[in-house]
Amino acid sequence: MKKFLVVPLMLMMYTGYAQTTDAQLRKNREYTGAVAKQKQYHAIYQLDKNDPKVIQKAIRNINNALNDPRLKGKLQIELVAFSAGTDAYLKGSEYEEALKALVGRGVIVAQCQNTLEERKIPKEQLYDFIALVPSGNGELIIRQAEGWSVVKP
Amino acid sequence: MKKFLVVPLMLMMYTGYAQTTDAQLRKNREYTGAVAKQKQYHAIYQLDKNDPKVIQKAIRNINNALNDPRLKGKLQIELVAFSAGTDAYLKGSEYEEALKALVGRGVIVAQCQNTLEERKIPKEQLYDFIALVPSGNGELIIRQAEGWSVVKP
Amino acid sequence: MKKFLVVPLMLMMYTGYAQTTDAQLRKNREYTGAVAKQKQYHAIYQLDKNDPKVIQKAIRNINNALNDPRLKGKLQIELVAFSAGTDAYLKGSEYEEALKALVGRGVIVAQCQNTLEERKIPKEQLYDFIALVPSGNGELIIRQAEGWSVVKP
Repeated sequence: MKKFLVVPLMLMMYTGYAQTTDAQLRKNREYTGAVAKQKQYHAIYQLDKNDPKVIQKAIRNINNALNDPRLKGKLQIELVAFSAGTDAYLKGSEYEEALKALVGRGVIVAQCQNTLEERKIPKEQLYDFIALVPSGNGELIIRQAEGWSVVKP
Repeated sequence: MKKFLVVPLMLMMYTGYAQTTDAQLRKNREYTGAVAKQKQYHAIYQLDKNDPKVIQKAIRNINNALNDPRLKGKLQIELVAFSAGTDAYLKGSEYEEALKALVGRGVIVAQCQNTLEERKIPKEQLYDFIALVPSGNGELIIRQAEGWSVVKP
Repeated sequence: MKKFLVVPLMLMMYTGYAQTTDAQLRKNREYTGAVAKQKQYHAIYQLDKNDPKVIQKAIRNINNALNDPRLKGKLQIELVAFSAGTDAYLKGSEYEEALKALVGRGVIVAQCQNTLEERKIPKEQLYDFIALVPSGNGELIIRQAEGWSVVKP
């Protein structure tokens, strides 16, 4: 091996970097997504912001996941709101119909009780159909321990 | 079945959407949270922002998870900071007491070494009690592979 | 036990808080990171913002994880973009070389097809080497169900 080849090769080995080949780029382009081999999937979505873009993204993301042809009919989702995310559930918010539609698609729509206490929000201010869980963080932790995937939009 | 019923029904079957029933809304409201059946739970919290609201939320979230009646006494948490999140650990920050209290509750409070190198921060600038891990991202990946839940406040 | 000791002790037992001891702080400082005992690790990275700081952080985070001495040579990563994160893949973005370098390191670099439809972006506007997956959210969910770790930079 010529000397002028050895130096860059050693450098690449040291840094872990290498020139990306056309074959690698082609192989990447040919990837079409993971294959859903399981009979059932579960995901918990975290909503802890009141930025309308984030709330809308959460709702859109959940619908996209439910519509993914790979997961159609075998995906159970839970949406848990805490911290500022609670605002999405307050009566008069613009998300009532979208949230009801999620329930209609089998999504559990739940609120952290801790947040209600910390922010002194009576539960009557939430839409009547919202579920209450002891803490949003506990819910995220228990669900993942059960094998659920987690998504933070 | 009347023709005027068939069309919307087929449409619903096609889109996957359906009218949400009162029974579905009632059932959602009756949900009270996942049940913690395991003897032990583990969670790693990611802190990669220096926004005081995010740092405070991370600390509050961890305490809420530890206080969740479902997880009381059986939850091990690690908090790993990297990128801008490192600022929370710098001597003189306003989080010293809250971080020490987390350690007192059994939380591992750790810092990414990569970030210190990238940002040229000598480790002496961090509170003396902070742990160092090779990389925050590696820590997130290894812990999840061990079955730990992940939370990004 | 003196009365003035009993009250704070009961209070601590009740709240779950306790004075952090020097031994606890010392033990925390001695932690050096989780140990990578598995032969292979997998992680999926979520990119759903077009904030240059977030895109750069995602790329930096992935490289840091691949460079972590604990994971060197046994970590497979996928980066999936959706929502505004798609902007990183548009021809003319400043990330072409960094993304190619990721492919060169074995990272799958993938884009959500749903987002292209919603935002009416023809796939020709993306770099030619980008992979397409049915939905970014479905990808996150399936990969985690396969045991992959998830990171949102």
